[in-house]
Amino acid sequence: MEKLLRGAAVVGQSGGPTAAINASLAGVIKGAIENKEAISVLYGMRNGIEGFLAERLCNLSEMFSTVGGDPDLEKLDLLSATPASALGSCRKKLPKTDDRDFYENLISLFRKYDIRYFFYIGGNDSMDTVAKLSKYIEGSDYEMRVVGVPKTIDNDLDGTDHTPGFGSAAKYIATVSQEIVTDCSVYTTKAVTIVEFMGRDAGWLTAASALPRLTSGLAPDYVYLPETDFSMELFFEDIEEAWKKHPNIVIAVSEGLRFADGHYVGEGTQSGATDVFGHRYLEGTGKALEIAVKEKFGCKVRSIEINLPQRCASHIRSATDISESLSCGRAAVRCAVEGQSGKMIAMLREAGEEYRILYVSKDVSDIANAVRSVPRDFINGRGNNVTDECLEYILPLIQGEIDTVYEKGMPKYLKI
Amino acid sequence: MEKLLRGAAVVGQSGGPTAAINASLAGVIKGAIENKEAISVLYGMRNGIEGFLAERLCNLSEMFSTVGGDPDLEKLDLLSATPASALGSCRKKLPKTDDRDFYENLISLFRKYDIRYFFYIGGNDSMDTVAKLSKYIEGSDYEMRVVGVPKTIDNDLDGTDHTPGFGSAAKYIATVSQEIVTDCSVYTTKAVTIVEFMGRDAGWLTAASALPRLTSGLAPDYVYLPETDFSMELFFEDIEEAWKKHPNIVIAVSEGLRFADGHYVGEGTQSGATDVFGHRYLEGTGKALEIAVKEKFGCKVRSIEINLPQRCASHIRSATDISESLSCGRAAVRCAVEGQSGKMIAMLREAGEEYRILYVSKDVSDIANAVRSVPRDFINGRGNNVTDECLEYILPLIQGEIDTVYEKGMPKYLKI
Repeated sequence: MEKLLRGAAVVGQSGGPTAAINASLAGVIKGAIENKEAISVLYGMRNGIEGFLAERLCNLSEMFSTVGGDPDLEKLDLLSATPASALGSCRKKLPKTDDRDFYENLISLFRKYDIRYFFYIGGNDSMDTVAKLSKYIEGSDYEMRVVGVPKTIDNDLDGTDHTPGFGSAAKYIATVSQEIVTDCSVYTTKAVTIVEFMGRDAGWLTAASALPRLTSGLAPDYVYLPETDFSMELFFEDIEEAWKKHPNIVIAVSEGLRFADGHYVGEGTQSGATDVFGHRYLEGTGKALEIAVKEKFGCKVRSIEINLPQRCASHIRSATDISESLSCGRAAVRCAVEGQSGKMIAMLREAGEEYRILYVSKDVSDIANAVRSVPRDFINGRGNNVTDECLEYILPLIQGEIDTVYEKGMPKYLKI
Repeated sequence: MEKLLRGAAVVGQSGGPTAAINASLAGVIKGAIENKEAISVLYGMRNGIEGFLAERLCNLSEMFSTVGGDPDLEKLDLLSATPASALGSCRKKLPKTDDRDFYENLISLFRKYDIRYFFYIGGNDSMDTVAKLSKYIEGSDYEMRVVGVPKTIDNDLDGTDHTPGFGSAAKYIATVSQEIVTDCSVYTTKAVTIVEFMGRDAGWLTAASALPRLTSGLAPDYVYLPETDFSMELFFEDIEEAWKKHPNIVIAVSEGLRFADGHYVGEGTQSGATDVFGHRYLEGTGKALEIAVKEKFGCKVRSIEINLPQRCASHIRSATDISESLSCGRAAVRCAVEGQSGKMIAMLREAGEEYRILYVSKDVSDIANAVRSVPRDFINGRGNNVTDECLEYILPLIQGEIDTVYEKGMPKYLKI
């Protein structure tokens, strides 16, 4: 164990919102208040690193402590129930570590507030921030520990069994998928409903739509992921095959479906724009398939894009996910106070019948910018559905419900 | 009170699914089992009148009675929690009552099963079925009582304070609207998010998106309904006005928005197809506005179509709505057993501070095919939001939550 580093801490949230990212924030807050001997005060940065550069900070220790100085558990629960990033977010990517001006400016701000602990909650791009910042700090004369807390509904971060936020998104997707399949089954006319879920490179969210197969059987007929090449010809064959069983077909697709030649299925309908990280901005995979099915079969067809609700549906969050997200936040504080830096908290699933998670720290440089896809053996041979093994992997992550606090019939949130 | 008419009863569901239509079915079943002196057996018709013509019937009395002959309340609760039409649905419109062949064929089927009570759960078009059938029966020598149970998420049925199904849809919409507004608020870049809700002619569902204004304030900046003419010029002015307050604007729109000249806003992007009732099939009001905003301001803009989930989100149904839907079903049985026919059950809201509902029967011929729009004085002068009075009207309908039964982390349904 390293010597006890005393000073202030700062925490930020970055990247797209999830239903669990505030639970991780609650975990960091709880951890900080519990570690007062090291952390004098925990600041929150508004809008991630961008807001930190503008010194837009708030005092989270004060906000979430009782008069007695203990963590205010009721308030932390309400924070955990609030979707999206309560501190605000940003999509800023840090420059390379040879940009001395940028990093020395950052360090001068850390000095100003005596910040010795830096926590960053986010996905791939946020772990890149953790990696660069910790690397620069290591080579500097400023002592600060930098630890990342994983977050992404996409479940595509490397080095961890799964990511906080995925379980709640998967629970919502399984629920809405079952509702849509039920809704679509009421008529007797031939129809195709295509439901599009998020997932540019990894099909985890779309895979979750198949979960009701394990209970009611009210799952989509087919599930197509970006991990296998999409063939329009086989797709049409699949539809004809399903019509032999029932008139109403429901098909789940990932936004990032690609043909064997690498082109996106939705390419014809996309804007071609890219986001600040150079990712291609996609829309319309479901819409493109809707048009194709309409042309081929002339039947009733519609496409449904689940869109934002899948990442912020906190009203049906998974108790397992929320509890794990909180634990990841607390583990990050513990890990930093114990002397580590340049790490990300990861979850290891223990072998055996019972679902159990161990929280460990991993070198963030090994994790940043890698994508963990759905393994090929989690997808069936024809590439039109996921295997039971895949569903058994996801199932524990959606277990448990948390009573939502309602105010006049609507979920109650916390604003900070 | 009329003489007691003894015989079988039949119930059907018609039109689009809702999260509460099975609660109304549960009410009819409960009512039938409780009225055994009149109703010997309650049949369910699969896929509405279409399935009845094909004699696709099931025995609901048997399915939902305990061994002791009482209503199986646990099973009825599970039915109420199941979205969409458990009996299946259809969109068949009955011919005019001068089509003797059609109606005499129907009567021969009624005779065959000794059906003396006919219950039909549905919206406008279903009440048209109730009106025509009861009119023909009245002029025939066959004794049968025909009563309609209202259902529509659109809340646009005439003669009733509101419709079963609307409250649950409104609760989901208020929840998802609050989630989306929260999600959209995390970034500092200028952006417009357009959220499209169902509602061809009536804006009730879109109005519900403004409900969080009464609690958290996390409501859309603007709400545009089909009841007022839409002006692109004023819309652009509204956006510029909102940007003075914050960078992220969220706008709620009804699918049926129209310009002053009567053209639909989404017309440029629609297929032009019509459904079997001749209603124009619309899509893309949100998409059309997204393109317009992009062209005008060049800012980040996206549109989200909430689509089917708003009508089948039984996982967050309103306890008030479910209880009222059940009461409507029971009231229909009582009304028929007491001798009425050609009626629809309607809800009257009693005057006074406390929210109280009276269940009455109304002549269905006065109701069928009329549309109850959002009154002009529920919309502000500029036509870009609803008034507090409108929200106070909707608020009681979304009150209360029902514990969902989960199986492996997913809502449990009943299949019949």
